[in-house]
Amino acid sequence: MRMVDLIEKKRDGQALTDEEIQFIVSGYTKGDIPDYQMSAFLMTVFYKDMMDEEITTLTLAMANSGEMIDLSSIQGIKVDKHSTGGVGDTTTLILAPLVASVGVSVAKMSGRGLGYTGGTLDKLEAIPGFHVEIPDEDFIRLVNESHVAVIGQSGDLAPADKKLYALRDVTATVNSIPLIASSIMSKKIAAGADTIVLDVTTGEGAFMKNIDEARRLAETMVRIGHLANRQTMAVISDMSQPLGEAIGNSLEVVEAIETLRGKGPEDLMEMCYILGSQMVVLAKKADTLDEARAMLKEALESGKALDKFREMIRNQGGEESIIEAPERLLTAKYQIELPAKTAGVVQKIVANEIGIAAMLLGAGRATKEDSVDHAVGIKLHKKVGMPVKTGESLLTIYSNSESIENVKELLYKNIEIGSSGTEPELIHDIITA
Amino acid sequence: MRMVDLIEKKRDGQALTDEEIQFIVSGYTKGDIPDYQMSAFLMTVFYKDMMDEEITTLTLAMANSGEMIDLSSIQGIKVDKHSTGGVGDTTTLILAPLVASVGVSVAKMSGRGLGYTGGTLDKLEAIPGFHVEIPDEDFIRLVNESHVAVIGQSGDLAPADKKLYALRDVTATVNSIPLIASSIMSKKIAAGADTIVLDVTTGEGAFMKNIDEARRLAETMVRIGHLANRQTMAVISDMSQPLGEAIGNSLEVVEAIETLRGKGPEDLMEMCYILGSQMVVLAKKADTLDEARAMLKEALESGKALDKFREMIRNQGGEESIIEAPERLLTAKYQIELPAKTAGVVQKIVANEIGIAAMLLGAGRATKEDSVDHAVGIKLHKKVGMPVKTGESLLTIYSNSESIENVKELLYKNIEIGSSGTEPELIHDIITA
Repeated sequence: MRMVDLIEKKRDGQALTDEEIQFIVSGYTKGDIPDYQMSAFLMTVFYKDMMDEEITTLTLAMANSGEMIDLSSIQGIKVDKHSTGGVGDTTTLILAPLVASVGVSVAKMSGRGLGYTGGTLDKLEAIPGFHVEIPDEDFIRLVNESHVAVIGQSGDLAPADKKLYALRDVTATVNSIPLIASSIMSKKIAAGADTIVLDVTTGEGAFMKNIDEARRLAETMVRIGHLANRQTMAVISDMSQPLGEAIGNSLEVVEAIETLRGKGPEDLMEMCYILGSQMVVLAKKADTLDEARAMLKEALESGKALDKFREMIRNQGGEESIIEAPERLLTAKYQIELPAKTAGVVQKIVANEIGIAAMLLGAGRATKEDSVDHAVGIKLHKKVGMPVKTGESLLTIYSNSESIENVKELLYKNIEIGSSGTEPELIHDIITA
Repeated sequence: MRMVDLIEKKRDGQALTDEEIQFIVSGYTKGDIPDYQMSAFLMTVFYKDMMDEEITTLTLAMANSGEMIDLSSIQGIKVDKHSTGGVGDTTTLILAPLVASVGVSVAKMSGRGLGYTGGTLDKLEAIPGFHVEIPDEDFIRLVNESHVAVIGQSGDLAPADKKLYALRDVTATVNSIPLIASSIMSKKIAAGADTIVLDVTTGEGAFMKNIDEARRLAETMVRIGHLANRQTMAVISDMSQPLGEAIGNSLEVVEAIETLRGKGPEDLMEMCYILGSQMVVLAKKADTLDEARAMLKEALESGKALDKFREMIRNQGGEESIIEAPERLLTAKYQIELPAKTAGVVQKIVANEIGIAAMLLGAGRATKEDSVDHAVGIKLHKKVGMPVKTGESLLTIYSNSESIENVKELLYKNIEIGSSGTEPELIHDIITA
């Protein structure tokens, strides 16, 4: 088998066989197939797409390219949750303890964020002492004992994906449904979950700029999940404005604690109920979504969910006292308000630009090597559809620097106030098969 | 400027600016742009094509990537001729001395053949003593004195094309009109000709498998020639069966001499008249094609053309005595006939497969490192449309090995005899603007 012939076959729109796809993935991982052939191949996939069977084979071959986490020693159904990313997306911090508190096992491996704001690991590390690098045995033990652990992704998880992603990034082949779907699903499958709940975000703040693209990605991932014998469902959620009110690592931990107390922002709370109910039903802890939602509501109101977060923090070496005094995390030197220049109704808050503003403050990474400042970020006081008076604060900037004119300018530019504006739909669609 | 952004721009179907294309070519030639980005870019060009202005800029940037031959010290119009390749294509050997004998300056740089049969250089080297590696000064002096010299392409001619071609070959991006056109035209322009006559071959024996593709390539090259201020025209010729009767280096030299004596195969002779007349008119040595053809006919009949070939051989160190005794070149140990198994009319002679048969005998190269056996090859006695009796020889195989069952089998498989067959049109179209 020669790589050039396989490039040509895909170039001309033919489907590749399992054997051919496995040859490509294993050859590339081992270094037998050079980058220059792989990038030409990736570009053919960008244009010619792949059939579900091809994407499934690609996904499984990438999952099998490195370590496969075996969670079989954890009793019951293991549920994983993945978001395609957004701005101010605090859901994992809330969902993991919330669904664990009703008996669902959440064995979650997360990545670090690259881009706007931190990833889940960066957010957890805003909690003093919290460890995310935990050996597999301890990880499994924690999930068995406490139903929940969120740790860093093993270095050898789906190495083919890691190598491919780096290549896609510099060859304009990131934005391809089969490549995105196989990248996400290969890591989920290698991480060992039986059941996968996907949050596919859409809007200016997200990877998928429109609903049709997001739906195609969601449907593709759900289908290949099923073909790979993993129960999979996806929610297509709105990311035209940031989710919740907090953007920045410590700020999002504080927001997670508030939400687990039942006092979080309404949209974030609703998103957690929607995703959480799906997780509970897929884990067979409830028969219907309504039943699941009632269980989660009870867990929140009774304090069980917050207790589970406390337990998770304790298990992973973090200071559990922050649950009672979360404001201790907000150590940024300056809190600067951003007053509205005109009165009206908020029409638009461009999520990705707000994310970039937070990154400029130090909350995210521009390159892999950058370090993250946990303390800084943005807390929104106004969201789309809310009325605002001239001079009223739109948001508070948490900063360690006083000279943030560029950040303010960017924020003003991306928050539009007009005569009318309506709150966007939170959920555009739910894809189950 | 970042290469990844340019890949994305072309990926999404936008035209690149001159500056962007120059950045790509010079960056790639210098090694600043890695192969893996270039191959992704090439694949976008395969799918998204390029505008004439883009191809022209690409062509000129590739021509300028290395040495530019300056032929300005040669008086008058310098005409170059290029064929996109075929089987048994002896035209350069005939045309160069033929048009030079009527006063047209032919300063031709040729490449070595890779594939079926030898290139023009391999054919010339079948003449004992003939040198193709000649310094630029001597090359120019010879053309000034004798109107003709055919030499090997300078190593530093269009190095960007050389590097790109090697990459295209392993990334399934060879077969793209803008890439083929710029590859050919960049070398012609770097080689210094004012005027370019292109023979775009089509059919199973050629690069362009059908007439529409061949026409698109021809039109593209003619347009970019004009945009680059080179008078350019193209003939779309048939290569469904081999041109002439000889396939193999020495055999083709012999055929060239016969043709220059006015005794060559009819199709080859006609092809030389058609291409040669165009060259004569473009060089302003005649006003009309008819006038040019009459001049060429006279040159052939008077022996002037053959004398010019003799002079060219002498100039380049070859044994001119082979003009009088060309059969001395036919040194293959065995001459083996291939008798027809049935009677009828020849319907099909699949040119590229006949070329492969000649390559298997040793007439061509499978890899760049292979050496060529000048003596071996095939001489056709029957061409498409000719009647044949059972047992009558279809062709003679010139071989240095007796065990050539594989070659015979391949030949039988690719020569079809049926109840009827008609000679194909030699010229499908002529493209002048």
